[in-house]
Amino acid sequence: MAPTLKGGDAALLPEFPRGPLDSYRARASFSWKELALFTEGEDMLRFKKTIFSALENDPLFARSPGAHLSLEKYRELSFLRCKRIFEYDFLSAGDMFESPLKVSTLIQCLGMYDWSLAAKYVLHTLIFGSAVFSSGSERHFTYIQKIFSMEIFGCFALTELSHGSNTKAIRTTAHYNPATEEFIIHSPDFEAAKFWVGNMGKTATHAVVFAQLHMPGGQCHGLHPFIIQIRDLKTLLPMPGVMVGDIGKKLGQNGLDNGFAVFHKVRVPRHNLLNRMGDVTPEGTYVSPFKDARQRFGASLGSLSWGRVVIMAMAVTNLKLAVSIAARFSATRRQFGPTEDEEIPVLEYQTQQWRLLPYLAAAYALDHFSTSLFLDMVELQRGLAAGDRSARQAELGREIHALASAGKPLASWTAQQGIQECREACGGHGYLAMNRLGVLRDDNDPNCTYEGDNNVLLQQTSNYLLGLLALRVQDGARIRSPLKSVDFLDSYPSILDQRFEVSSVADCLDSAVALAAYKWLCYLLRETHEKLNQEKRSGSGDFEARNCQVFHGRPLALAFMELMVLQSFHEHVHRPCVPPSLRAVLGRLSALYALWSLNRHTALLYRAERRRGCPGGRDRSSR
Amino acid sequence: MAPTLKGGDAALLPEFPRGPLDSYRARASFSWKELALFTEGEDMLRFKKTIFSALENDPLFARSPGAHLSLEKYRELSFLRCKRIFEYDFLSAGDMFESPLKVSTLIQCLGMYDWSLAAKYVLHTLIFGSAVFSSGSERHFTYIQKIFSMEIFGCFALTELSHGSNTKAIRTTAHYNPATEEFIIHSPDFEAAKFWVGNMGKTATHAVVFAQLHMPGGQCHGLHPFIIQIRDLKTLLPMPGVMVGDIGKKLGQNGLDNGFAVFHKVRVPRHNLLNRMGDVTPEGTYVSPFKDARQRFGASLGSLSWGRVVIMAMAVTNLKLAVSIAARFSATRRQFGPTEDEEIPVLEYQTQQWRLLPYLAAAYALDHFSTSLFLDMVELQRGLAAGDRSARQAELGREIHALASAGKPLASWTAQQGIQECREACGGHGYLAMNRLGVLRDDNDPNCTYEGDNNVLLQQTSNYLLGLLALRVQDGARIRSPLKSVDFLDSYPSILDQRFEVSSVADCLDSAVALAAYKWLCYLLRETHEKLNQEKRSGSGDFEARNCQVFHGRPLALAFMELMVLQSFHEHVHRPCVPPSLRAVLGRLSALYALWSLNRHTALLYRAERRRGCPGGRDRSSR
Repeated sequence: MAPTLKGGDAALLPEFPRGPLDSYRARASFSWKELALFTEGEDMLRFKKTIFSALENDPLFARSPGAHLSLEKYRELSFLRCKRIFEYDFLSAGDMFESPLKVSTLIQCLGMYDWSLAAKYVLHTLIFGSAVFSSGSERHFTYIQKIFSMEIFGCFALTELSHGSNTKAIRTTAHYNPATEEFIIHSPDFEAAKFWVGNMGKTATHAVVFAQLHMPGGQCHGLHPFIIQIRDLKTLLPMPGVMVGDIGKKLGQNGLDNGFAVFHKVRVPRHNLLNRMGDVTPEGTYVSPFKDARQRFGASLGSLSWGRVVIMAMAVTNLKLAVSIAARFSATRRQFGPTEDEEIPVLEYQTQQWRLLPYLAAAYALDHFSTSLFLDMVELQRGLAAGDRSARQAELGREIHALASAGKPLASWTAQQGIQECREACGGHGYLAMNRLGVLRDDNDPNCTYEGDNNVLLQQTSNYLLGLLALRVQDGARIRSPLKSVDFLDSYPSILDQRFEVSSVADCLDSAVALAAYKWLCYLLRETHEKLNQEKRSGSGDFEARNCQVFHGRPLALAFMELMVLQSFHEHVHRPCVPPSLRAVLGRLSALYALWSLNRHTALLYRAERRRGCPGGRDRSSR
Repeated sequence: MAPTLKGGDAALLPEFPRGPLDSYRARASFSWKELALFTEGEDMLRFKKTIFSALENDPLFARSPGAHLSLEKYRELSFLRCKRIFEYDFLSAGDMFESPLKVSTLIQCLGMYDWSLAAKYVLHTLIFGSAVFSSGSERHFTYIQKIFSMEIFGCFALTELSHGSNTKAIRTTAHYNPATEEFIIHSPDFEAAKFWVGNMGKTATHAVVFAQLHMPGGQCHGLHPFIIQIRDLKTLLPMPGVMVGDIGKKLGQNGLDNGFAVFHKVRVPRHNLLNRMGDVTPEGTYVSPFKDARQRFGASLGSLSWGRVVIMAMAVTNLKLAVSIAARFSATRRQFGPTEDEEIPVLEYQTQQWRLLPYLAAAYALDHFSTSLFLDMVELQRGLAAGDRSARQAELGREIHALASAGKPLASWTAQQGIQECREACGGHGYLAMNRLGVLRDDNDPNCTYEGDNNVLLQQTSNYLLGLLALRVQDGARIRSPLKSVDFLDSYPSILDQRFEVSSVADCLDSAVALAAYKWLCYLLRETHEKLNQEKRSGSGDFEARNCQVFHGRPLALAFMELMVLQSFHEHVHRPCVPPSLRAVLGRLSALYALWSLNRHTALLYRAERRRGCPGGRDRSSR
């Protein structure tokens, strides 16, 4: 049955104002309200409405599209707005635990307004706050309350000027001195300055700083987080020994103050070590529940995935905004036509549809996947919090990490390319700042390099897949995972034996067809596995062998991810609970995303077919 | 023999200062000075040096990378700098005629400094100035001198708010009144406001305004250009009846003041009509050397190509800058390595090389093509100026128009994608404004939509090719053109019969191999021709039939253009005059560009092969 609004609350989804889009809207084959309800659910729609209504009615959030604010003013405004968000109390700490999806929704709503604001809020609450909560212990919980009241304002200082992706090479040191029961935090030189730290430029009073922990005996126990006050709470002047400042203008998100900090022998009390993973006794003995640094690092993989999952959702939000702007413009902009006197909306041109509509489909498919993965992540975290140390829990962590590590690249690139396509599809007007496509592009851009460059992250996914195949080949272990994302790979030999026959174009309009073709990507898995072994046999070390990504690991991870997104969306739109009136349009979106994505791999399909020894002829596979 | 500097002027190409790039530079297989001399020639190097030295030593051109200027300040600075460029007198009007390539070089040098400045200069001198010179007659030459002294400052007002690409639909009117011997220039409504006009926002005093010319009898003779004073020379206040202003912030080039203008019955003297293409006698009779509006429009195609040729060069300049920044960063940035203690420059990673080096090769290939096309264009213009109305001259005009219409899309997209790749390849630091990749991306972006969206322009090239094929099929006319770019298409049936066999990887490192494979694109031409005929047979009008671009006309035009660029570069680097010491490196650049470009068409090559009815087997073509 079609979802309907409870209690007749039509105000939740009011009619659009009359305008030039009416004629297109009247031609829709479905009710947009039904689609909105089905996609988001009434609770989430209501929550969004609460947030947007508050911002719309608050002069602090007034915006003038395309306005040119000075950096100082923009950063000041973002801070004031961030503070106001806490005053609105859209989401208490309790709500966050009860309905985690609302956290994601709140971030997306703030981001739809302005990513600088969303980033400030997220960095303070979810990155700084979560780090204190999850890496610290009871002695640090006094900070939590101050975070929510914004008595203190936080940042997360991991990256250094010369080290981003390679966190193990970070060079800030923390030497423990048992005499004073203090750590001495020190930056050996400017290349070891903490750099890029969001909120640190102007506004943060406290930082979670990662440093190499050295004991009095000379031993180094690796990276540990410390909570350090970097600015005076009243004057915002730097604390003694801390040189802190703003790194300057960026390509986007200029309402966010990214900063740097150099520590000159800063003395920090022993209890400022966030001690969940490892602690130091007053007399200077190191204690840890983990055997070694590698294991300690593994245990933190789960929380690394959070960032990637959230970035996926952020990128999808940008794609939604851009496609809406470009589609609406294209429906009203008229240029040329079949006769000299008649101009038609540019949306009627095949090229314009080809440019924009696949991104519309991608927005739906990626949105669904990103929400699902978020909920899987919540399950994982709940297991961790409940102390679940089962093999399944560990497997789930690895699987989610693999999905997030390729999902973030796929979503951020799709959004980045989609926004650029939308900007160009709007011609000159797309280049005007007030039309917002530039801001979306600039603000989405860091999603492509946050948490490590996309190409580097993809390697984590291909390594995961290669690891599973290696176990199957060497030990006969079945390929399977808690979320079943990789289970199909277990039957890769028989998949590679299959031929996919399509008798008509109409057949292709069912995404099941492209989905079946996509499973052929196990060809890429087998090829990558063979390439890796070949490299190793020829004497390359593991590092060099894995460096051969371009034509193997990279396309493998991307194709795998496209399949995951497609499969999840295909199943979703074919569920019995889908309202009959929406089945056609959702089915078309799924088919469009499927064919558009698969189209990138046509050469691979041809190549794989030839290598089977049966190029273009009848199926006489030898396997 | 290797080129050497005359007179031992080592100051022209001084050594690089010592630094972290030394080790890579020492490993080069060639002398960079020799390559610079070969690529640019000593005269042009010297001209560039003159310009850069002047800017470097003038405080007005001091820059603070990543600085955040207000719009007002930035626009004011750009105007002052533009004025100063005239004072430097790098290039007199005489030089422009004598050594036109220096015009292109000057634009590129100004653009390397700041595209807003280059745009202001070009719009005033080359767009506004050329329009007055080439569309006007002797009575307008008094303006020329005032243009070079910047007594007046000009803009070119064609585009309206609702009409860009479709210039024929422009709605500003010019009604002639014989009683006062004046034109009445009028904008019927806001949608007919002149819009996007560079220099109009703040600084232009005069505009070349295009309007539909109406005679007292009611006849309309189509678009004609008028020179109109829009602002007072001293106060810069708008002239009576002119509403003029700035359209606001853009995604980039914010030092350029793009503006709008609405004309309310503005009275303009009769002699302000730029009357080369058509004139009005005092008593109100229309006279023109051209039979009809269509022919008049055709005659202006030549000058339309200028814009596209110059945009090509601008895009290539951006690509050069971006690749230099990213390659240098990648050679010094170290991250991860084969062991925990040893980090290697990111340039050593296969992925990084794969991302950046093809764009380096593309910069060389596109640079060479764009310079050649510029010189062809000069030849065309010299013919026009000399009154050459031969068939060859007309053919040359069409050929250059086809090359420029696809060359501009190929160059601007390659640059746009290349800059984005460079920005991501530099990780977080690529996102910092002072590292300039953002400005390059934002300033290059309009190159993708100037003169009409790239996708629309590509259609002009595919139409040209289809027209040639249609003549051959219907009338047996040979396919050939003055620059011989299309001559190979004449033997398309035999090309389609050929098989390209490569026995080793080493063979592919000669760009001749990819070049031969590229000629297979005539398969696309034949397919597009057939598709078009099929559409027409099924009852589509010409407009609808040509609308089927996505899988036919568009890839045809792009592949054709890639072939043109490749062929031109391949021939260039295999000339006997290439110094022996540069042959290896230039040959590698040519092969890399060839294989990288061809790689995009792998699926086509597979598909075409199958359709020959001989999929994967021995050659037994039936043609």
